[in-house]
Amino acid sequence: MYSKTIQKLIKLFSKFPGVGPKTAARFVFYLTKQDKEELKELSKTISSLNTLKTCNFCFKLFEGEGNLCPICSNSLRDRSLLCVVAKETDLESIEKNKIYKGLYFILGGTVSTLKPKELKTLRIKELRERIKNPEKFGISGASFNEIILALNPTVEGEATILLLERKLKDLGLKITRLGRGLPIGGELEYADKETLKSAFERRTQQ
Amino acid sequence: MYSKTIQKLIKLFSKFPGVGPKTAARFVFYLTKQDKEELKELSKTISSLNTLKTCNFCFKLFEGEGNLCPICSNSLRDRSLLCVVAKETDLESIEKNKIYKGLYFILGGTVSTLKPKELKTLRIKELRERIKNPEKFGISGASFNEIILALNPTVEGEATILLLERKLKDLGLKITRLGRGLPIGGELEYADKETLKSAFERRTQQ
Amino acid sequence: MYSKTIQKLIKLFSKFPGVGPKTAARFVFYLTKQDKEELKELSKTISSLNTLKTCNFCFKLFEGEGNLCPICSNSLRDRSLLCVVAKETDLESIEKNKIYKGLYFILGGTVSTLKPKELKTLRIKELRERIKNPEKFGISGASFNEIILALNPTVEGEATILLLERKLKDLGLKITRLGRGLPIGGELEYADKETLKSAFERRTQQ
Amino acid sequence: MYSKTIQKLIKLFSKFPGVGPKTAARFVFYLTKQDKEELKELSKTISSLNTLKTCNFCFKLFEGEGNLCPICSNSLRDRSLLCVVAKETDLESIEKNKIYKGLYFILGGTVSTLKPKELKTLRIKELRERIKNPEKFGISGASFNEIILALNPTVEGEATILLLERKLKDLGLKITRLGRGLPIGGELEYADKETLKSAFERRTQQ
Repeated sequence: MYSKTIQKLIKLFSKFPGVGPKTAARFVFYLTKQDKEELKELSKTISSLNTLKTCNFCFKLFEGEGNLCPICSNSLRDRSLLCVVAKETDLESIEKNKIYKGLYFILGGTVSTLKPKELKTLRIKELRERIKNPEKFGISGASFNEIILALNPTVEGEATILLLERKLKDLGLKITRLGRGLPIGGELEYADKETLKSAFERRTQQ
Repeated sequence: MYSKTIQKLIKLFSKFPGVGPKTAARFVFYLTKQDKEELKELSKTISSLNTLKTCNFCFKLFEGEGNLCPICSNSLRDRSLLCVVAKETDLESIEKNKIYKGLYFILGGTVSTLKPKELKTLRIKELRERIKNPEKFGISGASFNEIILALNPTVEGEATILLLERKLKDLGLKITRLGRGLPIGGELEYADKETLKSAFERRTQQ
Repeated sequence: MYSKTIQKLIKLFSKFPGVGPKTAARFVFYLTKQDKEELKELSKTISSLNTLKTCNFCFKLFEGEGNLCPICSNSLRDRSLLCVVAKETDLESIEKNKIYKGLYFILGGTVSTLKPKELKTLRIKELRERIKNPEKFGISGASFNEIILALNPTVEGEATILLLERKLKDLGLKITRLGRGLPIGGELEYADKETLKSAFERRTQQ
Repeated sequence: MYSKTIQKLIKLFSKFPGVGPKTAARFVFYLTKQDKEELKELSKTISSLNTLKTCNFCFKLFEGEGNLCPICSNSLRDRSLLCVVAKETDLESIEKNKIYKGLYFILGGTVSTLKPKELKTLRIKELRERIKNPEKFGISGASFNEIILALNPTVEGEATILLLERKLKDLGLKITRLGRGLPIGGELEYADKETLKSAFERRTQQ
């Protein structure tokens, strides 16, 4: 039997996404072999997550001066486009690939079920306020003419898109969603029915 | 060491796509346990592949009366749409899912490299002839107004699409290709750069 | 829909072990692209499985002169050792690796369940006869002093070993079975409980 | 771009065994969603790894009174058997399955290469001292008559076993190693050459 501290740490690591007790044990023994400095640094960095600030406009985590994250405070970004993502890692996927130059808004989740409690955690009211009056949240010179709902074409993503379309309709803006169809490099033969159907329905000239 | 016949059959099965010697041996020993009737039927069915006819219009394999396959001879299909696929299994994927009601044309491959010899095996000339004069190949009452290039969004598929667009341009028809983007059920976080880029570029209202 | 012959061949290939309809279709279209000679050869080789002989002593399939397979008729093999395997592919695994120089006997299966009907297909009576009187089955100068039960350490293999030990006990021969424990290259950390237990129980000096 | 703290934590988690940057990011965002208490507890538990004691006899990590871990201080364990393992997770695998009742010794690694520097980290001198005089290290009434080298049958494990056998020979004790062969539930057909060879060489009666 492992010692209590080790057991406790295995239990804490086992809560990490995708980590089972065997992997958690491997993490702990990796740590027991590190020197005191490394452990201290890890411990301190985890603690300092508590001090991260949340961007006033897009809800991204950041640190530093002011109330806006580096993307929102960058005046070179295209302030006519707003891209709504479910979570910060999605924002990072898009940024990393340098395929978009507008602003973001982190919704904080998707409609996974219809539990009223969960729905409240989605930042729909906050999204409406920021679209209507970006100035109020620190973004000057912004006037959105397109809201891109960059949500997954999954059951949860689709439900969220439907909800957002309904909740934003009265603002009279162009609302778009990401293209669906065969992924680049994918093969027709292995596509599931829904993807193939979508690829036929959304066929394009060019 | 296996007997000569068994070795030979292992070798022949090993040429099947995705089959290594171990799997091939398992196939052979499966067969040695079947009764004579089953072996005879398999042997005969393989032989009779030689007697399959090729559809005069779309190049699908078929058997029975006449020169046209059941799809091409079915007058209820929409004869204003022609869907070009690389191979018969692609046609089957589309048919099985019942997402398309027009006619097909099997191109016989994709432009995998630029070797002139390989290019000749693609049925481009045959495609042009059938688009211009379907009647001549047994399809009456057809007048295509859209050619759907249902090729994979892979390097080979893209090269083939470019080639076909060039070769068919003078016919003045609407040429489309399948929608690309996030596959249904897919997640932004796991999409590769090209798919994500494509999903942003091809974003749609609704 | 595929043509009847193609459907039939897909159905026949789908009965092969580990082959589903998609793989079967790929096999068929691989074949439709081969020339007549290749198809004929495959068809003929499958047919000629019917003409294979079964070795009078060990039940291996073979072709050629006489009643014995090349292993049984090879007078350089060690005729004091008899290795009992469940099926011919097991024999081949051992031969290929050149780790054994005695004779074999193919039992024809394992005790998968206790159905009396299945038990009858195991060649237990034949095994006893051949151990007692190898000369009668064409093996001269043989006198076994060890019977190796090379069966898998699975539930089925264990049940078969127990059965054989009981059925051969009165012959008064040394009966052995393959070593069990950690596989070479394996790791303690990933071993299941039974393997680890077996490895401790069967620990050895040297 | 993620904030500096997040980037730093992703970098620290990416050093964990088997964790890439994508998984590390998932860990970090999992943490950003936890409340302050949870973060504090994780941070504190990691810090307290520094306070773990090492068992005076077997080198297992533990906490509590005295110099010996719970296994070494348990007088009901069989003090005539000593099981040498490479690392603490191996000890745990054996304990968890309740297949051994003696004492342990954690060697601290295996001979992965012949670098003199690495060899020094193996506790060979410590092992000899504890075998010769367990009393001196707090274990009373112990007198080992068997040393079980529970190391993996891998290249590294084999090299370590050879080294230990040489280094312990003069002590005149029975030295054993774990059984090798087919793993329980394994199949002959899929065994690699070395495992199959080992299974034949180590065949047993019963």
